[in-house]
Amino acid sequence: MAKPPLLFTPGPLTTQIETRRAMLDDWGSREPTFIAMTAEVRRRLLDIAGGQGSHVAIPLQGSGTFIVEAAIGTLVGPEDTLLVLANGAYGERMVEIGLRLDCNVKVLRWPEDRAVDPAEVDRALIEDPTLSHVALVHCETTSGLLNPLAAVAAVVARQRRAFIVDAMSSFGALPLDLRQTPITAVLASSNKCLEGVPGIGFALVEAKALERAKRVAPSLSLDLYDQWRGFESNGQWRFTPPVQVVAALLEALRLLEAEGGPAARGARYAANFRTLADGMATLGFRLFLDESIQAPIIATFRSPQDPRFRFDDLYAALAARGFIIYPGKLTREPSFRIGCIGALEPEDFEQLVAAIGEIMAEQGFVAAPEAAAQISR
Amino acid sequence: MAKPPLLFTPGPLTTQIETRRAMLDDWGSREPTFIAMTAEVRRRLLDIAGGQGSHVAIPLQGSGTFIVEAAIGTLVGPEDTLLVLANGAYGERMVEIGLRLDCNVKVLRWPEDRAVDPAEVDRALIEDPTLSHVALVHCETTSGLLNPLAAVAAVVARQRRAFIVDAMSSFGALPLDLRQTPITAVLASSNKCLEGVPGIGFALVEAKALERAKRVAPSLSLDLYDQWRGFESNGQWRFTPPVQVVAALLEALRLLEAEGGPAARGARYAANFRTLADGMATLGFRLFLDESIQAPIIATFRSPQDPRFRFDDLYAALAARGFIIYPGKLTREPSFRIGCIGALEPEDFEQLVAAIGEIMAEQGFVAAPEAAAQISR
Repeated sequence: MAKPPLLFTPGPLTTQIETRRAMLDDWGSREPTFIAMTAEVRRRLLDIAGGQGSHVAIPLQGSGTFIVEAAIGTLVGPEDTLLVLANGAYGERMVEIGLRLDCNVKVLRWPEDRAVDPAEVDRALIEDPTLSHVALVHCETTSGLLNPLAAVAAVVARQRRAFIVDAMSSFGALPLDLRQTPITAVLASSNKCLEGVPGIGFALVEAKALERAKRVAPSLSLDLYDQWRGFESNGQWRFTPPVQVVAALLEALRLLEAEGGPAARGARYAANFRTLADGMATLGFRLFLDESIQAPIIATFRSPQDPRFRFDDLYAALAARGFIIYPGKLTREPSFRIGCIGALEPEDFEQLVAAIGEIMAEQGFVAAPEAAAQISR
Repeated sequence: MAKPPLLFTPGPLTTQIETRRAMLDDWGSREPTFIAMTAEVRRRLLDIAGGQGSHVAIPLQGSGTFIVEAAIGTLVGPEDTLLVLANGAYGERMVEIGLRLDCNVKVLRWPEDRAVDPAEVDRALIEDPTLSHVALVHCETTSGLLNPLAAVAAVVARQRRAFIVDAMSSFGALPLDLRQTPITAVLASSNKCLEGVPGIGFALVEAKALERAKRVAPSLSLDLYDQWRGFESNGQWRFTPPVQVVAALLEALRLLEAEGGPAARGARYAANFRTLADGMATLGFRLFLDESIQAPIIATFRSPQDPRFRFDDLYAALAARGFIIYPGKLTREPSFRIGCIGALEPEDFEQLVAAIGEIMAEQGFVAAPEAAAQISR
């Protein structure tokens, strides 16, 4: 058996071995030891975002979509209307969740290669006073686009609406300070920039917003108010937690601190992205996004137009070399994605780029249109 | 650091080290390797219950409550009425879930020390033709009571209603054969008799019932129809799965087969229970349930009436010796519980009973009323 592959994916991703080793024990979910672990996870999550005193941390079993659904279901009541700002699949997923939960939902849309425009949000909120909640995806994993979180938060706060942020693929690496940036609820999961294993999402919610949310959620399992009251009453999860996943997240949070916190992690990811983007440019690949709106989290490359290029062949050849990349998710044009997050260093990206170069030679395709034109001449 | 404690709990429980070691890798959730792992888990779950050809296996992220809510939400439509048969906390939880989901719910209740009576169920179904679905907890973890699954299933089938069974704490150890016992949906989780780690629930659902359930669920995350179609379309989970938990469950399922399947596992648990019950009887403790309705899964003991007995003190003294037991959950009288499931052998129960005997001497309490009377004389 070869060494395990490196995951250049948006999560589940490559974790540190210490994080996985933290799962080698069993814990009773109502034991004092495990209650202390849960408390430390909750404290560390708040600390990362500067949410102590204003927000509470509510972990929830399940994937990122579960915590997004739980937050919308708990915070958006029957009299409310949610405005979703969408420029990718995860914005659209919030729309789908809102509709499924029978919420009043409106949408402002931008193309997948354009950032959300705070001025348009401002106008929409002024025009429609029934809009009570605004939802934004911080980093759209669809494309890798970074939306202007602080500017949108300022607009939403000035218009006195509640603000729900899907920070799934940014939390723990990109700057987020709840003391500076007014946000009602930040949502993320264990298995992206925190570099834990998947199985838990979490919400950092303003305590005052949560206090109004009793019996709003149309679900027992996904009720963040009840989940919060459970933690506050006895430190325990209401329903069986994935104890090993919690242990892995705790270890991952300690490793994040040891690395130097989100700033250091963000810098490592930025170095990963730079190495990748420069190397791929040398091979002739083009980023889908303008770099001014590109987050150093996941890079979307336009698929080469060369008819000899086939994504599945590239994927398979890379996988055979121990590199797992990710398919594209754009609606309008062929693309593929390479994640810059996880326990990876710039050298890993140098090796990935070198492998892609080798495979291009083997499979006989070129990436740049000019190069393709030259060869066909 | 002492060796890790043994968990005499209803789950999360003591797992085998091989099961935990299976979590030491990372997997991309859309990789062929992981898709094959998911397929093997789904096949093995069906095989355990003899559901091949009639049922489909649908794993879902989250705890046992999540899969119960998902099944009720997906299968009980707005025109339907769910009859819950309740004799403990998990029956009542199904009532709570149904009400929260705005389903039509009716309840037949029995005391916590009485099994569900199939004849009463029969009469209720005859009297009320609007009842479309019946829900039963196979083994009530509240008390350890075993409900008469086959007899209730026969009644429900004869009355042509759908039948939802919470087999959370019986699946994989107590007999269940879907070729013999008509059940629409069986629900269980990774971390009980299958001896996996927590983080996944699953439903085995009749394909023909599921086909009618498109767009019924009021939740995106907890929609078992969509989850099923996701697996069928490309073998992948719709939303990020807890990949390490899946890997642990797969290993646990292979270990179950190696042990000799559910019959062998049930026999080991029965030996565990026998050792525990006999040993505790010698110390003067009394089981809450009549043994005729006692499952060999979890044993509820009446708390000693001796005023020198304090559960928290017993718990702490046992924990200090490396034995974790479980508080009671009866509504009417003080009790505590000791789980018989997990990677435990009769010798572990001998040691547990010996430790309890020592602690009784140290803490100066007696368990049997007669013994207490003798001492106080």
